[in-house]
Amino acid sequence: MARYGAQLGPDITFLGVPPCDLGDPASYADADVVIIGAPFDGGTSYRPGARFGPQAIRSTDYVGHYGSRPSLALRVDGLKDLGVRDAGDVEMFSGDVVKSLADLRAEVAKVTAAGKVPVVLGGDHAIAYADVSGVADVLGPGRVSLVHFDAHADTGDVDFGSLWGHGQPMRRLIEAGAVRGDRFLQLGLRGYWPGPDILRWMAGQRMRSYEMSEIGERGLRECLTEAFATATDGCDGVFLSVDIDVCDPGHAPGTGTPEPGGLTARELLDAVRRTCLELPVVGMDVVEVSPPYDHAGITAALANRVVLEALSAIARRRKDERDGTRWDPRLPLLADRG
Amino acid sequence: MARYGAQLGPDITFLGVPPCDLGDPASYADADVVIIGAPFDGGTSYRPGARFGPQAIRSTDYVGHYGSRPSLALRVDGLKDLGVRDAGDVEMFSGDVVKSLADLRAEVAKVTAAGKVPVVLGGDHAIAYADVSGVADVLGPGRVSLVHFDAHADTGDVDFGSLWGHGQPMRRLIEAGAVRGDRFLQLGLRGYWPGPDILRWMAGQRMRSYEMSEIGERGLRECLTEAFATATDGCDGVFLSVDIDVCDPGHAPGTGTPEPGGLTARELLDAVRRTCLELPVVGMDVVEVSPPYDHAGITAALANRVVLEALSAIARRRKDERDGTRWDPRLPLLADRG
Amino acid sequence: MARYGAQLGPDITFLGVPPCDLGDPASYADADVVIIGAPFDGGTSYRPGARFGPQAIRSTDYVGHYGSRPSLALRVDGLKDLGVRDAGDVEMFSGDVVKSLADLRAEVAKVTAAGKVPVVLGGDHAIAYADVSGVADVLGPGRVSLVHFDAHADTGDVDFGSLWGHGQPMRRLIEAGAVRGDRFLQLGLRGYWPGPDILRWMAGQRMRSYEMSEIGERGLRECLTEAFATATDGCDGVFLSVDIDVCDPGHAPGTGTPEPGGLTARELLDAVRRTCLELPVVGMDVVEVSPPYDHAGITAALANRVVLEALSAIARRRKDERDGTRWDPRLPLLADRG
Amino acid sequence: MARYGAQLGPDITFLGVPPCDLGDPASYADADVVIIGAPFDGGTSYRPGARFGPQAIRSTDYVGHYGSRPSLALRVDGLKDLGVRDAGDVEMFSGDVVKSLADLRAEVAKVTAAGKVPVVLGGDHAIAYADVSGVADVLGPGRVSLVHFDAHADTGDVDFGSLWGHGQPMRRLIEAGAVRGDRFLQLGLRGYWPGPDILRWMAGQRMRSYEMSEIGERGLRECLTEAFATATDGCDGVFLSVDIDVCDPGHAPGTGTPEPGGLTARELLDAVRRTCLELPVVGMDVVEVSPPYDHAGITAALANRVVLEALSAIARRRKDERDGTRWDPRLPLLADRG
Amino acid sequence: MARYGAQLGPDITFLGVPPCDLGDPASYADADVVIIGAPFDGGTSYRPGARFGPQAIRSTDYVGHYGSRPSLALRVDGLKDLGVRDAGDVEMFSGDVVKSLADLRAEVAKVTAAGKVPVVLGGDHAIAYADVSGVADVLGPGRVSLVHFDAHADTGDVDFGSLWGHGQPMRRLIEAGAVRGDRFLQLGLRGYWPGPDILRWMAGQRMRSYEMSEIGERGLRECLTEAFATATDGCDGVFLSVDIDVCDPGHAPGTGTPEPGGLTARELLDAVRRTCLELPVVGMDVVEVSPPYDHAGITAALANRVVLEALSAIARRRKDERDGTRWDPRLPLLADRG
Amino acid sequence: MARYGAQLGPDITFLGVPPCDLGDPASYADADVVIIGAPFDGGTSYRPGARFGPQAIRSTDYVGHYGSRPSLALRVDGLKDLGVRDAGDVEMFSGDVVKSLADLRAEVAKVTAAGKVPVVLGGDHAIAYADVSGVADVLGPGRVSLVHFDAHADTGDVDFGSLWGHGQPMRRLIEAGAVRGDRFLQLGLRGYWPGPDILRWMAGQRMRSYEMSEIGERGLRECLTEAFATATDGCDGVFLSVDIDVCDPGHAPGTGTPEPGGLTARELLDAVRRTCLELPVVGMDVVEVSPPYDHAGITAALANRVVLEALSAIARRRKDERDGTRWDPRLPLLADRG
Repeated sequence: MARYGAQLGPDITFLGVPPCDLGDPASYADADVVIIGAPFDGGTSYRPGARFGPQAIRSTDYVGHYGSRPSLALRVDGLKDLGVRDAGDVEMFSGDVVKSLADLRAEVAKVTAAGKVPVVLGGDHAIAYADVSGVADVLGPGRVSLVHFDAHADTGDVDFGSLWGHGQPMRRLIEAGAVRGDRFLQLGLRGYWPGPDILRWMAGQRMRSYEMSEIGERGLRECLTEAFATATDGCDGVFLSVDIDVCDPGHAPGTGTPEPGGLTARELLDAVRRTCLELPVVGMDVVEVSPPYDHAGITAALANRVVLEALSAIARRRKDERDGTRWDPRLPLLADRG
Repeated sequence: MARYGAQLGPDITFLGVPPCDLGDPASYADADVVIIGAPFDGGTSYRPGARFGPQAIRSTDYVGHYGSRPSLALRVDGLKDLGVRDAGDVEMFSGDVVKSLADLRAEVAKVTAAGKVPVVLGGDHAIAYADVSGVADVLGPGRVSLVHFDAHADTGDVDFGSLWGHGQPMRRLIEAGAVRGDRFLQLGLRGYWPGPDILRWMAGQRMRSYEMSEIGERGLRECLTEAFATATDGCDGVFLSVDIDVCDPGHAPGTGTPEPGGLTARELLDAVRRTCLELPVVGMDVVEVSPPYDHAGITAALANRVVLEALSAIARRRKDERDGTRWDPRLPLLADRG
Repeated sequence: MARYGAQLGPDITFLGVPPCDLGDPASYADADVVIIGAPFDGGTSYRPGARFGPQAIRSTDYVGHYGSRPSLALRVDGLKDLGVRDAGDVEMFSGDVVKSLADLRAEVAKVTAAGKVPVVLGGDHAIAYADVSGVADVLGPGRVSLVHFDAHADTGDVDFGSLWGHGQPMRRLIEAGAVRGDRFLQLGLRGYWPGPDILRWMAGQRMRSYEMSEIGERGLRECLTEAFATATDGCDGVFLSVDIDVCDPGHAPGTGTPEPGGLTARELLDAVRRTCLELPVVGMDVVEVSPPYDHAGITAALANRVVLEALSAIARRRKDERDGTRWDPRLPLLADRG
Repeated sequence: MARYGAQLGPDITFLGVPPCDLGDPASYADADVVIIGAPFDGGTSYRPGARFGPQAIRSTDYVGHYGSRPSLALRVDGLKDLGVRDAGDVEMFSGDVVKSLADLRAEVAKVTAAGKVPVVLGGDHAIAYADVSGVADVLGPGRVSLVHFDAHADTGDVDFGSLWGHGQPMRRLIEAGAVRGDRFLQLGLRGYWPGPDILRWMAGQRMRSYEMSEIGERGLRECLTEAFATATDGCDGVFLSVDIDVCDPGHAPGTGTPEPGGLTARELLDAVRRTCLELPVVGMDVVEVSPPYDHAGITAALANRVVLEALSAIARRRKDERDGTRWDPRLPLLADRG
Repeated sequence: MARYGAQLGPDITFLGVPPCDLGDPASYADADVVIIGAPFDGGTSYRPGARFGPQAIRSTDYVGHYGSRPSLALRVDGLKDLGVRDAGDVEMFSGDVVKSLADLRAEVAKVTAAGKVPVVLGGDHAIAYADVSGVADVLGPGRVSLVHFDAHADTGDVDFGSLWGHGQPMRRLIEAGAVRGDRFLQLGLRGYWPGPDILRWMAGQRMRSYEMSEIGERGLRECLTEAFATATDGCDGVFLSVDIDVCDPGHAPGTGTPEPGGLTARELLDAVRRTCLELPVVGMDVVEVSPPYDHAGITAALANRVVLEALSAIARRRKDERDGTRWDPRLPLLADRG
Repeated sequence: MARYGAQLGPDITFLGVPPCDLGDPASYADADVVIIGAPFDGGTSYRPGARFGPQAIRSTDYVGHYGSRPSLALRVDGLKDLGVRDAGDVEMFSGDVVKSLADLRAEVAKVTAAGKVPVVLGGDHAIAYADVSGVADVLGPGRVSLVHFDAHADTGDVDFGSLWGHGQPMRRLIEAGAVRGDRFLQLGLRGYWPGPDILRWMAGQRMRSYEMSEIGERGLRECLTEAFATATDGCDGVFLSVDIDVCDPGHAPGTGTPEPGGLTARELLDAVRRTCLELPVVGMDVVEVSPPYDHAGITAALANRVVLEALSAIARRRKDERDGTRWDPRLPLLADRG
């Protein structure tokens, strides 16, 4: 089977990592991580454009695209150490959400079945249903917990006559049994949606959602520590879903449904790092980057760094497990470089 | 049935014309023309954003929104003289093209069945299938001819696994029998799509497509005259479909698939005017305005003027038929104003 | 008297709340809050555009415009609980500041006289003179204190030969006796204006102005607590005036006189919440949103949320007073949702 | 009296020509032309920003700012040959149109009284009342005819409660007797404003207005020839008023009230050239450049070239009168360069 | 020698044509045309950004990147029929113009020596020195004539202390003897640069430069016919150099030194087509596309089409020579498609 | 020698301070600080545009350009108290980095030799080599220490075949002996460049580099205190080099190589203030402001404030030394204003 490549624009890979073909397992046998593009924005309820997310996230960067990115902070090279491969885009016609999600889910499952970590570049958040389901199809229902950074709960029921928009995937995942409600952590929620009915449903599922007021009062660090403490109880791994709108629109203007009052870029990067250092991440997506609303590519750059931060932390976690070491954020950059 | 209003943003009407409710025929009984919004861009193959077209086309303008626009040139007030009403948007989830087109088609048919001219504000060009089918459902198959301004033929077969994207509606209309291939006029085509196979199919349907080289060599005026000569032979009316990308990207940057080398805004307005003055227009759409790619709203403003130019010319045509007069473009603006 | 509606563009209301007509008291008899648009930027000394502020603040949002916004954090629906109405715009020709302010002042006084809270959407900050004077015309001179978030003191004397620009309203209010200098709190000042003479005048009035260095050193929380302690001594209520440029230009680029080094959006929202939870707010304006300098609408979105945060907190304060409850920011979002 | 300089931003002159001080006649005694900035946009009915027009028109250009611009086509150096001076800006507070226009009018009259050609850089078109009145104050009422390029007639009566907005200056000029209605030429009008009442008033004044349909049908060249034939009958000179929105928004997006279907930039430059070559221009303004709505400075660049084209043609006309020569547009650029 | 690929961003080829390596002649043995990227803007005197030109020109397009583009008008597939290959970028540090031009020249010469047509994607116009010299190094001094579309003559002597900026390559080429002054055709010049001295030098070289006034008066068609009549007398081939700023800024805003009053995009495409249909083009460059100043990619899209139009016309010319046919612009698009 | 003035655009000075001519020592004899523009971006490895930095940094501001800026916080007027002069731009052709740096270095040395503090407005960071070398040429090798705010270490060796790009100046300075590695403080580093080899070289030089993880963990305040403790041991003064990309792209989008996760604008201003209050700053540059990538001028505004904050703090330090006072950040703005 031939590699599909890119749905829109030239066929490129994430910062130049080698391509692979999901139809040819040998092409990614050596990889720990496989990147998949999901150029879909048919699920957006407001501003579209996220279909250009995969292209933008892959290609933004001022350093050469040669498949290596040594982290100053974590002292690993996420791309090289994990042998990352890029499978290109899944063909996803934005006018057919049902077929598109099914096709994406199948590809994610392939990656998971091969023992690799799928990293899906959205695309709007509707794809999370496919991303997590694809992992759960292999690991089993309820065996993966979710760490979900977002301004919105994404637990709506029916919008514009559909079950499958970008405001609803988290409900669908719980309803389908892919994820347990009580292993569903949400961080960064704020604003005026959803209303009490949906919040009641969420409470009924025993979800744990950190609204920005609580985070502001208690501190993000404490909230993460609390959340991580039980995140994986009874589960085999964690899926990390990052909606870029968890950040304040000042840091991430290029997104479909911006909600003022969010995290800074620095806070998100630190939180993603901790998630991947402290928890056994088995899959990830980064969604809702909408290049037509971006300026100077800063939102795409942030999403690119979210991916790199996660990969670096996964690599560091594996290295620490292997070497019995532990990352120290206070270690000066140039210490022990001899 | 309650008026749906706006799918995105506040519920406004085209330049302040009175609203109507398609479920309540009395609400538009006095109108000659009914405007319908089609906020859909799930059919776009490249840049989305046309879902915000209806909102932008309705609201752009520096004069007050009080439902009146007297044409300097044509000396009629299209909005007032025709009793234009705005039905709001059809709810169209971009992730479900099939359902969305069916719902739009039904609404257009209602307007046509009531003897009114539907004017549909897109949305991407996929909606043309619904727009023309809705008219043909009432007038009968093959009874409406098409005048189609566009950079692209939109006669593709299958794209991204779907039959219903914005590059295919014209093929679907002919295949379905809604429009006869030999009553299908296209003006402004250019560039590098479609390829020979599709062009052969088009030739086989006896379509008449004016590429920009022919228009440049012979002049737009002559081409229009030739095209109009037989446009309605055997038909009962004309549907006018204007893809804003028929204009050069310099005049219409805010669109999904811009193709350099097109008409000027002035040429398009003149051509639309002639179409509606000289032919019995029974329906119309204006599509592919993508506000996120627009600058200073100039593309939305052009689309707004395309609608006004058409409405003014329809009003003038009716007035001329009634009064036995004839519009003279050489008449000075202030002549006979006594 | 007929409702004037919108000065520019379509006649819309704030997120779809019902319209009212200030000439018809019955139309807002049930409301606790009335919104007024002040589309004026003739007072700006630098970048104009704030005339489009009311339109942008009203219409930005990705959720449907149906007049309801339940706050996740505060667990009230500011729009519904307070019965908010929108009176449309006051007609304000930017070329005539004196007449424009007089007309606005009269409308604000009407709202106050009816016992409602006026919420004025600017417009440039020159309108604050009218907004506060209108309230003071009813409550009496010196009976309303001011809480003023801004990068600038706005206490200039004469600029460009006028007394009435956007850099001078606070001086005019004190000179006119509408507000006592010692009940005038300013937060967020920074930069290089005004000079020592004006600062001396301010000190002479016993104003209390928190510059960003003090806020940075002591913390915003402590400054607010200190400021609120005596804010209403000898006064009957508080007018809250929010110049969006109190935020850093990274969070609020769309404004006329951006000054680097300001609050984050999160800090402003929290401070507005506290103001309206802890103090008896009797009027409010949000000013200096300049859409032509905005990007992706993020500044308008922030101003929209400032209004919602204020309305939610006012609603919550009333609820807490009624029910004897107290808002706890540490309460998890989904706690007690049963 | 001290030179005022710039109202906004640094004190610069048009492409580096020497500054002058209108209070010091010696400072511009050697000049044939004096440039005046009118940074005013309090008269705009829609998008403001024209206050930044003078700054943008003066400073845009990729060649050094040393006060020389030899015209390739006309073979003169308008700036040097005419000894152009720049008087800086008149202080014009946008919130006070009456005082601002009076102050500008006085300065224009000074220049005219000194026998120089005033070239006013707007600012919105409200300033035309001051510009032309200032010239007529010296030359006498009805002694100056107007050549007016614009999308709009600008002959409104009362807007937003004022007589002095940017849609009304031409009416005020005729009412005041400064200009005779039958020596008022308008070119480029189009669209849907004003309505029949105002058009009747215009006809009653015997104005001659060329709408774009007439220009399109007859050709701009023929219209200009016809218009120029009697333009100066009974008058002593011509005031040229160029509203940049006479061009299509594709060529001039950065303006307050863009109207699709206008002239190309090339057509405007040619028409301005002919006006200044063939008629005795005694004053000029270029208005409605709104930098916040511009892109890549193309509208400011066009306005800058309109000024240069006019100055070059005035210089060439004087040279031709002096030398008995005549400009030939067919002469190759490099012919006779020996 | 390894293929260098892309200097900036991912390694992509022009619309997906196969890559080649200039160090490996076999990799382009089958090609008639080889594309080279010149990501250099160290020569710009004003706005930089052209270093991103190659990337933008290669990747803009809404159709799939699979290396095929059948021309609707010319009925050939330039990319496929000519076997186009893309050699990637030459490494060109913008801070070292001398070394960068030398390196580019050597690569262009390789392509010419192999009997292929080099198509260089700039980059600023400084690269034309290298592009034409590289061809002349093989064909011999004075054996290649130049057809040069530009707003500027680019015949300056010393600017900013350097001989090698983007305003000087044409002088350097003539001085170096690479091109004869009397076989140097320039079309589209306008504005206020250069001054009389340089024009005299040009006249002394017997260059033929068509300024826009002459083109406007005589028509572009007639000018091209005249120019082409003797273009190749005594020469072996033509180098076509297209500075995108020959178009009006309305059609090509994304460029370094925009000059109002230029060609439309349609005119440029037609002129490029005629050049390549009627003359023996042996090399080509397209320069001065500056993406940071572009809007919605319309300038990059135009440059992409300039390349495609040229390649299509070269292919058609070869086909016509082979088949004894002749292209007829009046032939309807669908005629003879059976 | 004549003052060169501006390389690009009109000849303006920083916020209207008096101009001076570096060839005429008398013209800046009274100044403590001399500003120099370095309009160069030939050293950028990615996005250019920094050549417009000096123009943008000088001219951005909403207050009049009259050479005075009293600091609200520090209670001094940096511009007036220090007698700041602006020498205009050094002519720097971006295509010749070697000559450009040499010319800049000579001018900086002149200023230092005259006992003034040079403040260089970049330009890309390549200029730091010239800026610091120019100071060291006078103070002696190793006698000046560096405080360097940046996202990047800028210690690369060879890039794009050159030693002189914007990623390499810090290495060149140490190699040349101008600065001691162990007196080189870097703050704000982050991301994925450089790699281990270069970091090892840096460690070998005993540089002290604070990566954002360490800053986040320990707090910026503590890091600065630690860094400043030994910053000047064995040195005579400090050069402060501020790359605007040390800030998060949300606060500084207009830059060449944006790296997410940086300082806020507030943090940078506070850190610059402390540097200049606590250390003996003898020279400074602000670099990498790229206006074509900026939005609403917010990055230029930030850089302008960085300069003002530094000048104000230098003035305050001198005043405190003179008067035996000490700045208290907790002092309320209006305290002691009597």
